[in-house]
Amino acid sequence: MFQERRVISTDVVIVGAGPCGLFQVFELGLLGLKAEIIDSIPRPGGQCSELYPDKPIYDIPAIPVCTGDELTQNLLKQIEPFGCGMNLGEEVTELAVQDDGSFVLATSKGKQFSAKAVVIAGGVGSFQPRALRAEGAEACAGVSLHYSVKDPQQYKDRDIAILGGGDSALDWVLALQGVARHITLIHRRDEYRAMPASVARLRELQTAGQVDVIENAKVTAIEEENGVMSSLTVQVKGGDAQTVAVQNALVFFGLAPKLGPIADWGLDINRKTINVDTEKFETSIPGVYAVGDINQYPGKKKLILCGFHEAALAAFAIKQRLEPDRKVHVQYTTTSPIMHERLGVED
Amino acid sequence: MFQERRVISTDVVIVGAGPCGLFQVFELGLLGLKAEIIDSIPRPGGQCSELYPDKPIYDIPAIPVCTGDELTQNLLKQIEPFGCGMNLGEEVTELAVQDDGSFVLATSKGKQFSAKAVVIAGGVGSFQPRALRAEGAEACAGVSLHYSVKDPQQYKDRDIAILGGGDSALDWVLALQGVARHITLIHRRDEYRAMPASVARLRELQTAGQVDVIENAKVTAIEEENGVMSSLTVQVKGGDAQTVAVQNALVFFGLAPKLGPIADWGLDINRKTINVDTEKFETSIPGVYAVGDINQYPGKKKLILCGFHEAALAAFAIKQRLEPDRKVHVQYTTTSPIMHERLGVED
Repeated sequence: MFQERRVISTDVVIVGAGPCGLFQVFELGLLGLKAEIIDSIPRPGGQCSELYPDKPIYDIPAIPVCTGDELTQNLLKQIEPFGCGMNLGEEVTELAVQDDGSFVLATSKGKQFSAKAVVIAGGVGSFQPRALRAEGAEACAGVSLHYSVKDPQQYKDRDIAILGGGDSALDWVLALQGVARHITLIHRRDEYRAMPASVARLRELQTAGQVDVIENAKVTAIEEENGVMSSLTVQVKGGDAQTVAVQNALVFFGLAPKLGPIADWGLDINRKTINVDTEKFETSIPGVYAVGDINQYPGKKKLILCGFHEAALAAFAIKQRLEPDRKVHVQYTTTSPIMHERLGVED
Repeated sequence: MFQERRVISTDVVIVGAGPCGLFQVFELGLLGLKAEIIDSIPRPGGQCSELYPDKPIYDIPAIPVCTGDELTQNLLKQIEPFGCGMNLGEEVTELAVQDDGSFVLATSKGKQFSAKAVVIAGGVGSFQPRALRAEGAEACAGVSLHYSVKDPQQYKDRDIAILGGGDSALDWVLALQGVARHITLIHRRDEYRAMPASVARLRELQTAGQVDVIENAKVTAIEEENGVMSSLTVQVKGGDAQTVAVQNALVFFGLAPKLGPIADWGLDINRKTINVDTEKFETSIPGVYAVGDINQYPGKKKLILCGFHEAALAAFAIKQRLEPDRKVHVQYTTTSPIMHERLGVED
């Protein structure tokens, strides 16, 4: 199969399909601008759909109560008239400013976009594996230390350590048992957040001496040369440090939000957020805006309703950027014929 | 009857019961603060209820379509848990800053309020009679020139002019005919925005010589001494100026939004709006905030959804002002037990 190389041209690329990204489509649409959304999660809705799809939200204005899923569905219905392109399950990997001030974006699926403006509505960022903080970990990452398993056969006939106490850690202990020569599970507690059946099976293997388990322990250092691992230093709570000879480590500490590739775009970053002004919600790169939980300004509160406001003002700023010689007036959806035409409703 | 003189103590007085004023109650309530609303209109909802109760609104986030009335009803439902006092049909006439930084407010019905903060959510202002702009008009206002009729007998045996072409103007021509010695109706067009029956009756009186009608005409000057009127200079379109001898003029040019008494509170006023910052939405008077259509800041758009954001940030700023030593954190209505308690929902 050939990678898709067609360039998709649009007015605005929106990075993030959470509530603010979706409402951004609406505000741009009212001003006659077309948009494409890109999100690494394969579903729209962002945190609302990922973290609390069924939980009630009480603070969306004029909606006394709704679930995260209902909020997402209502926003999807609201943006229907504008035919926005949805590019889900792929991450924006590159953003390049062109000589004419427009942008070219590339995604992890090899798509390319050309846009006149970019809105980052990335929420708390994309969810990425939480890293092991230990001496030598960075040097080993991708060489002998991994946060996911690409090919189990890679661990054939090797001594490996698996770090963590959740389902991912235990699943891989069970799956690699019999593939790897020897497995040591290292967990910072003695309780597991995993399926009881998996924990029971782990205990069986432990009792049979087929898997070593070190609990209440953490890896404090990795002995390595050029990323090639020889052993781990493991500190057990209240005990001495011990050395575990392994050639590989697999780390499953759960997912944490990270800015991801956005961090490399040259934006003015304030910890994990992007600094914007409160007039246009523009970042330090002209033509790149940020709305919702990912942005930062004096007074900022991470509330969905604030992101809606930010999306509205960003849309006006983008319209003005694209049509610098024309003053952009507010037209009301209640009375304006042109708003009705764009919304597809009869006058 | 005695005027009510009891002082109502509360955390925050909100001036204006439009959508932003109502949502301000909600945001304050989530932070544990009590509020009283005051509005000159006897119904909640502001412009939504007054100007477009039945018209669809399309740009409230996550509500693909609703009417002004529905929006108001939903907001009233949303603020139900917080038991806000509603003081409708009365205008705030005075605002006084106390030595301790708190506020005392008085209304046109003689009520007094004591509050730790004030939020002005006055929309486009209160609706007041549109003034006659003509030389001498200001001097005569309240003396010989009036915008409403208090006592018809005041015009007995006097020559009067009635200005305007709507229902109010025609109603008073008909009502004062037989009371005043002589009436001249002066209208800037030759078509009337009034009940056809009233127009027909006017024509009868005109034909019978009982009322003079000057159409396509405007009053350009008033001849007066110390506000006592002797005549009007009337300019007919395409004709000469004429002088009409009258002792009184009644002006019915319709209602226009005005800031009203708010204009006299010493706030930093920008045309008919109040300057605020974008961090707290605080005015030039510490402790007085302004949200919704009445405020002004770089990037301001008069959208309801923007007012919701402003109300949220103002609420956090007020909470911080009242509890300066405690950092105010965002707590989410989806997960926070204290939010659930304040909302009156079960965990």
